Amino acid sequence: MTSNNTNPTQQYAADALQAFVEAVFSKIGCSDTDATKAARVLIAADLRGIDSHGVARLSGYVKQWEMGKLNTRPRMQIVHQTPSTATIDGDRGLGLLIGQYAMQVAIDKAGQVGSGWVAVRNSGHYGIAGYHAMLALAHDMIGISTTHASALAVPTFGIEKMLGTNPLAVAIPAGQKPPLVADFATTAAAYGKLQILQRKGQEAPIGWAQDAQGAPTTNPHAPKEGGALLTLGSDELRSSHKGYCMSAVVDILSGVLPGANYGPWVPPFATAGSTSERQPPVGKGTGHFFGALRIDGFQPAEVFKSHIDNWIDAFEQTKAIEGKRVLIPGEPERLAEAERLEKGIPILAPVVADLESLGQKLGIEWIQAI
Amino acid sequence: MTSNNTNPTQQYAADALQAFVEAVFSKIGCSDTDATKAARVLIAADLRGIDSHGVARLSGYVKQWEMGKLNTRPRMQIVHQTPSTATIDGDRGLGLLIGQYAMQVAIDKAGQVGSGWVAVRNSGHYGIAGYHAMLALAHDMIGISTTHASALAVPTFGIEKMLGTNPLAVAIPAGQKPPLVADFATTAAAYGKLQILQRKGQEAPIGWAQDAQGAPTTNPHAPKEGGALLTLGSDELRSSHKGYCMSAVVDILSGVLPGANYGPWVPPFATAGSTSERQPPVGKGTGHFFGALRIDGFQPAEVFKSHIDNWIDAFEQTKAIEGKRVLIPGEPERLAEAERLEKGIPILAPVVADLESLGQKLGIEWIQAI
Repeated sequence: MTSNNTNPTQQYAADALQAFVEAVFSKIGCSDTDATKAARVLIAADLRGIDSHGVARLSGYVKQWEMGKLNTRPRMQIVHQTPSTATIDGDRGLGLLIGQYAMQVAIDKAGQVGSGWVAVRNSGHYGIAGYHAMLALAHDMIGISTTHASALAVPTFGIEKMLGTNPLAVAIPAGQKPPLVADFATTAAAYGKLQILQRKGQEAPIGWAQDAQGAPTTNPHAPKEGGALLTLGSDELRSSHKGYCMSAVVDILSGVLPGANYGPWVPPFATAGSTSERQPPVGKGTGHFFGALRIDGFQPAEVFKSHIDNWIDAFEQTKAIEGKRVLIPGEPERLAEAERLEKGIPILAPVVADLESLGQKLGIEWIQAI
Repeated sequence: MTSNNTNPTQQYAADALQAFVEAVFSKIGCSDTDATKAARVLIAADLRGIDSHGVARLSGYVKQWEMGKLNTRPRMQIVHQTPSTATIDGDRGLGLLIGQYAMQVAIDKAGQVGSGWVAVRNSGHYGIAGYHAMLALAHDMIGISTTHASALAVPTFGIEKMLGTNPLAVAIPAGQKPPLVADFATTAAAYGKLQILQRKGQEAPIGWAQDAQGAPTTNPHAPKEGGALLTLGSDELRSSHKGYCMSAVVDILSGVLPGANYGPWVPPFATAGSTSERQPPVGKGTGHFFGALRIDGFQPAEVFKSHIDNWIDAFEQTKAIEGKRVLIPGEPERLAEAERLEKGIPILAPVVADLESLGQKLGIEWIQAI
């Protein structure tokens, strides 16, 4: 048992966690194939160091199911399409699965006509954006994945929560080098970072959140106390309107384009009432947006990938601030994955307790730590 | 004559400026049609309040032509394509024109198969990103436009200029409301903002630039003195890596995908040697990337546009910090345009002097202020 932040953690093997999560998804009605595919998204998040989106979320999905908000035998279908575009209705299924299905439709369309763009409605939390985007890599395609989320952030000058953390991921294939994967929330900081500070009783840097009057604050509890997260850029002077613009575009592509909800109407994950969800709804459930661009729709894939290797080389070799080095987008997650595949995934004690009790409730034995 | 910042300005009618710029482009060899179309991009920038990208740039294009770097009778051609993608070689023509041509190819492809994506090489400075993206609006399409630029910014932790201001624009059609247009550089501040402070002898806010050692600085001259611009987010704590990721994606789509230069190899505009251009080149000239997404590839355009109106309504009505209001992406530019169409475009005295002398050199009479 090691200590991570203020909470003790235990290390678990990715395989064992995958099996446990699969069993849980099977228990609530998913087919075996679906349970495996859904579990992979959560384990990928834990492996890649994005702990807020891994097994820590599992009981949330089960809660959604208990509330009757999650359909584990959905009939996902394409409701509208052209050769390079489609809208998919996810039939209130697991976003973790709908995302993979939608990305495959985008990839298939790109195979046919050079690119594929798929907007999704009636979905739910889809895990880490990057997982879906990365599905394009094996096909020598650039993958794009965005989702909106329930409102936690304000537009510049606002004091009402109107936008989610609205992440954007872009995965770009390389040749000899690992792929370049950008995957980030369009807020200055993810809410998970504030939650860590809440537990530790520490203050947040200025620029992450504002209080109920819209003043900058270091109080990590601010978003629960009438305040909100700030968009990337943090304040007017440092161009928070650009983070607002990006977040707005993500919300419109993921929400308005497929006919889902949008802005303050995006439904919350798992715990109803936890955010400023607005009623009545203006669309169907939560939405996402996916894209696949075939590299050889522009130039030979091998030539492109060798130039990406050169791009990465140049950025790796760039002079850095003393004691630091320049990282490549996706590198921190890739390094975490290598380490965690070898040494196991550290899970915080409260998350272990939550999973153990979830297992008890569903009759599934919790796994042994390494 | 009014005073704007520390420099006096004079007001000019947009029509008169348009005619002057057309005459200049004709004089250096553009066809009449091309001169008109190129001039429109610069005047649109001035009308929309993006003064750094309007007529202030005109003598730069002429300088490019004098240096033999600009071909005013280019043979632009599609060198590779699929039904929804294309790569265009701009034959060293005016980016102002190549952008419009490429966007039209994207729009035509979207008309055929739902979306169109066009990467461009062998181009030059294309004006404001938003102009090209907005060409999609009349077709009930979402327009996307990105370009890279010569290196002025550092990746997080870097002290070597590796990325341009690399702007991204997205234009989204509305119904009764004006369209939503996001158009922004992926740096914390545009370099033009630092230039204004240089002229006024004032300090910059922390978060815009760093010095040669990578320390935060308020010196607006820093990027010319071994320092650099910072990406959106400003510093590690406030997620400058996200601005770096966005800038990297823009650079790869605009540079690597079409086979143009990229990163520190992107050639500078007009004044050679003004940036850290790296030799030998790794591709052909400067590049851009454009997209057009047909709304009715996803759902009926009228339904989508009425929801965009509702989105805009909700954001316009959101509670704001006392004395402020929440703006809609593109609103400041739209308000500037309405005002400047009525009252004229204010041009700074040094820019007036520059244009007057450009006119004298080319035998074109400078215009009267209002």
